[in-house]
Amino acid sequence: MTPATEKIILGVDPGTNVMGYGVLRVLGRKAEMLALGIIDLRKFGDHYLKLGHIFERIIGIIDSYHPDEMAIEAPFFGKNVQSMLKLGRAQGVAMAAAIERQVPITEYAPTKIKMAITGNGNASKEQVADMLRRMLKLDKEELGKFLDATDALGAAFCHFLQMSRPQSEAKHTSWKELARKQGKI
Amino acid sequence: MTPATEKIILGVDPGTNVMGYGVLRVLGRKAEMLALGIIDLRKFGDHYLKLGHIFERIIGIIDSYHPDEMAIEAPFFGKNVQSMLKLGRAQGVAMAAAIERQVPITEYAPTKIKMAITGNGNASKEQVADMLRRMLKLDKEELGKFLDATDALGAAFCHFLQMSRPQSEAKHTSWKELARKQGKI
Repeated sequence: MTPATEKIILGVDPGTNVMGYGVLRVLGRKAEMLALGIIDLRKFGDHYLKLGHIFERIIGIIDSYHPDEMAIEAPFFGKNVQSMLKLGRAQGVAMAAAIERQVPITEYAPTKIKMAITGNGNASKEQVADMLRRMLKLDKEELGKFLDATDALGAAFCHFLQMSRPQSEAKHTSWKELARKQGKI
Repeated sequence: MTPATEKIILGVDPGTNVMGYGVLRVLGRKAEMLALGIIDLRKFGDHYLKLGHIFERIIGIIDSYHPDEMAIEAPFFGKNVQSMLKLGRAQGVAMAAAIERQVPITEYAPTKIKMAITGNGNASKEQVADMLRRMLKLDKEELGKFLDATDALGAAFCHFLQMSRPQSEAKHTSWKELARKQGKI
């Protein structure tokens, strides 16, 4: 048996008002939480300030924890075209930070994350938080303080579960690696 | 009278299949075209490859021409939420490249660009191209080869016209500058 390799997974939930993030350290079939937090973007009135802040903070988080992979919670539906354009920009900026630091990105739809963690694609935020708390042996207060980061931590945990499955689904890899494989660069 | 200062304006039209760019050198009330081109993203099957390519190419263009400002053609309406999410991501990645290199961004709606250049918000791409060709004294072939870059060059030219107006409209500035003004950093 080969020794299990350590991996760091950064989970991100890029919203236009609050961005959540969670960092997991994974060793074989075990996962522990390294960091959890939110970035409140509401204080920035200007749209570019928000985007700039997302970019700089994600670069900062990547440089602090050196994640091997990034998992993003990415809704594919929204209220209207305007809100989707804003969400797309926030996602694009977060992705650009990962691309800049050559961290491979995998996207997960919200229902997929809920399903992977609780077995129910329509689980509430509290149910997801409760399950994450048990599986990662977290303090109730620890997670309660950052309930908005639950989805980000959920994305990271969902990615860990996908990785641990014997036959992992085809997943996105770093764009440079993909480009090399496809002979584009 | 103070001497006119030179400014370089990068115009970008970030699409999900073809990205256009145009670079203008502006001296007082005079503008000349420095570069015009398209980046064909259709050869990249993968969504992340497209985003990664947009990011790297815009960084490359910024590092080649050192623009003082970036003007983006940004539609606010689209067919459906899915296409707006994709467009938002492409815009977000292009904006992140400008943010990373601290180039201030200004957005212009397509109708605003057409109106500024031709006086008609519903002008055709050919009408906009024809007017740009005359105003910038370009060869017909020069612009014809890159018709997809017309909107990008149009965005840069529209920004130049806005700048030359005595009472310029309030415009976006670099996010760091904005943050400083608002006392956020």
